[in-house]
Amino acid sequence: MQIPPLDDRARDEALRQLDGLVKPVGALGRLEQLAAWLCAAHGEVPPRPLDDVRVVVFAGDHGVSASGTVSAYPRHLTAAMVRVFLAGESGVNVLAREVGARVRVLDLAVDDPLDDVPDEVRRHKVRRGSGSIDVADALEPGQARRAFDAGAAAADADIDGGADLLIPGDMGIGNTTIASALVAAVLGLPAEDVVGTGTGVDDDGRARKVAVLERALARTVERGATDDPFAVLTSLGSACAAATAGFLVRAAERTVPVVLDGVFPCAAAVVAREIAPGAEQWWVAGHRSTEPAQAFALKALGLEPILDLGLRLGEGSGAVQAVPVLRNARAVLAGMGRLADLG
Amino acid sequence: MQIPPLDDRARDEALRQLDGLVKPVGALGRLEQLAAWLCAAHGEVPPRPLDDVRVVVFAGDHGVSASGTVSAYPRHLTAAMVRVFLAGESGVNVLAREVGARVRVLDLAVDDPLDDVPDEVRRHKVRRGSGSIDVADALEPGQARRAFDAGAAAADADIDGGADLLIPGDMGIGNTTIASALVAAVLGLPAEDVVGTGTGVDDDGRARKVAVLERALARTVERGATDDPFAVLTSLGSACAAATAGFLVRAAERTVPVVLDGVFPCAAAVVAREIAPGAEQWWVAGHRSTEPAQAFALKALGLEPILDLGLRLGEGSGAVQAVPVLRNARAVLAGMGRLADLG
Repeated sequence: MQIPPLDDRARDEALRQLDGLVKPVGALGRLEQLAAWLCAAHGEVPPRPLDDVRVVVFAGDHGVSASGTVSAYPRHLTAAMVRVFLAGESGVNVLAREVGARVRVLDLAVDDPLDDVPDEVRRHKVRRGSGSIDVADALEPGQARRAFDAGAAAADADIDGGADLLIPGDMGIGNTTIASALVAAVLGLPAEDVVGTGTGVDDDGRARKVAVLERALARTVERGATDDPFAVLTSLGSACAAATAGFLVRAAERTVPVVLDGVFPCAAAVVAREIAPGAEQWWVAGHRSTEPAQAFALKALGLEPILDLGLRLGEGSGAVQAVPVLRNARAVLAGMGRLADLG
Repeated sequence: MQIPPLDDRARDEALRQLDGLVKPVGALGRLEQLAAWLCAAHGEVPPRPLDDVRVVVFAGDHGVSASGTVSAYPRHLTAAMVRVFLAGESGVNVLAREVGARVRVLDLAVDDPLDDVPDEVRRHKVRRGSGSIDVADALEPGQARRAFDAGAAAADADIDGGADLLIPGDMGIGNTTIASALVAAVLGLPAEDVVGTGTGVDDDGRARKVAVLERALARTVERGATDDPFAVLTSLGSACAAATAGFLVRAAERTVPVVLDGVFPCAAAVVAREIAPGAEQWWVAGHRSTEPAQAFALKALGLEPILDLGLRLGEGSGAVQAVPVLRNARAVLAGMGRLADLG
């Protein structure tokens, strides 16, 4: 896929103007880097306001969570949480309201018919749950592509609606296991290195996750499925991971900046970059996860998180809190006085 | 001075309610701690909104900066920057507008008559500049107390005006040297440990700052002035440092939460805690400084910064960016659904 490059001239002009503001050179630290990045993305100095921010939460279940081995929480919570999102009472709903961002939740693979929720939520569904990756492929042939396209269509809808900034969120019991598997497979890392404690498993729980991942990775390597990103998504991923990858690639294709959240979107981003090299230039990392797989993913993507608030919720809840920092980055470039005018 | 305690029952009730929200226990990380702190400060759950946020920037010069040994910038910039603040074009002006906070600048000791600025800015002036601390006391007898009272009066004015949250900012060429001296004197640390590179001196510049600080600390120890916080302010501080301390103590006395910014307000906070033990319960740290003296100050105060954006500007520019995180902390407690309602 063809990813447009960022505008290096706008970036350089931004850095030049930043050096001329009423402050010591470089004294605004990360804000200066982010301001220059926004200018490079928008091709103008100052960049445009980030008024219209949209979060899309991809919801789904995983076969690997069915046995209760990898998560501290039961799987039926995923469906219950979809209803919480629709009621506007999830963590990211509340945090998004604080920055004026919209939140949509899409059912990609919730293991529940969700008959009571609106069609605009359900019509993206690829399947219910997934194969348990330690013993079987996560997805049937063709489903990874279908989910990828659903994610791309979600980005198209928001961009056509006027989005200035996009945030993919994730909701699904077992998500950190899938994210760790994808990072390990794409980057060639051992299970032991990438597995963390997720939303709160103990040491035994973590050991079970490592064992599950070792079996899943061995199965994937045996099938020779680690070189093709869609094969990796089919073997180890999920409809949500594929959809997030599609969302990220389409945003880059259409030159709309993205803020990545925790380990799940960052794992999907690692896969997305395999599909569309260069797309990572259009993304920033919003929040540092406590999951080791995110650290590996960020290093591979060349990204450094803006915030580190110790969150481990997912949903886009960390990324949405980075929005004010991005707006601040724009504001200083647009609003501060110039040293040259001090006389 | 009598500092009211925080409300532990409200804190406990907040933590209990946080555990019942639609999220894994503890998954909101730092937001949960901040939400509980706000509840303890306000004595109610959820805490009140933080609508009215006010920044007070204390501006002044230092004798120690006259020789050009400790700063990369000339001293006349302090007066020029006061005018930038009044034009609304400083970094903190711009960043405060993003969160709807007001900014006042007060001239405590700018080495310029500032005849052209409004009386409300100038009437707090204690003196022009200060003694060069390597060879003389920074302040005349009585001036530290006068500046402390001016800072307390500034807090009173903002609290009477309806402030929900206060942020002391600092502006003055040479400020990091003074901040380092105060931290070293109060905490008994060697100059070598506390001195950083300020707004941008090189290695030689840093070595000169260390030498200045060693002479200043030796002089202060000789005079036996390290045990009394007002004597420390007189020997090594500045009118701005004393005013910031007064501002911080008065906010705590009147139970209004404060967000501390970089090394200068944190150094003043270390002195303020000597004057009013327990006042530090009313403060949070907004932003991590690159200055080593801030790390020592925070450790002594038991505070951990909310943000780390690599800023080294002062002015309250880091603290004001932490305001959205505090508002988020309140919002999740006030707005998220409860696990008990999931059915």
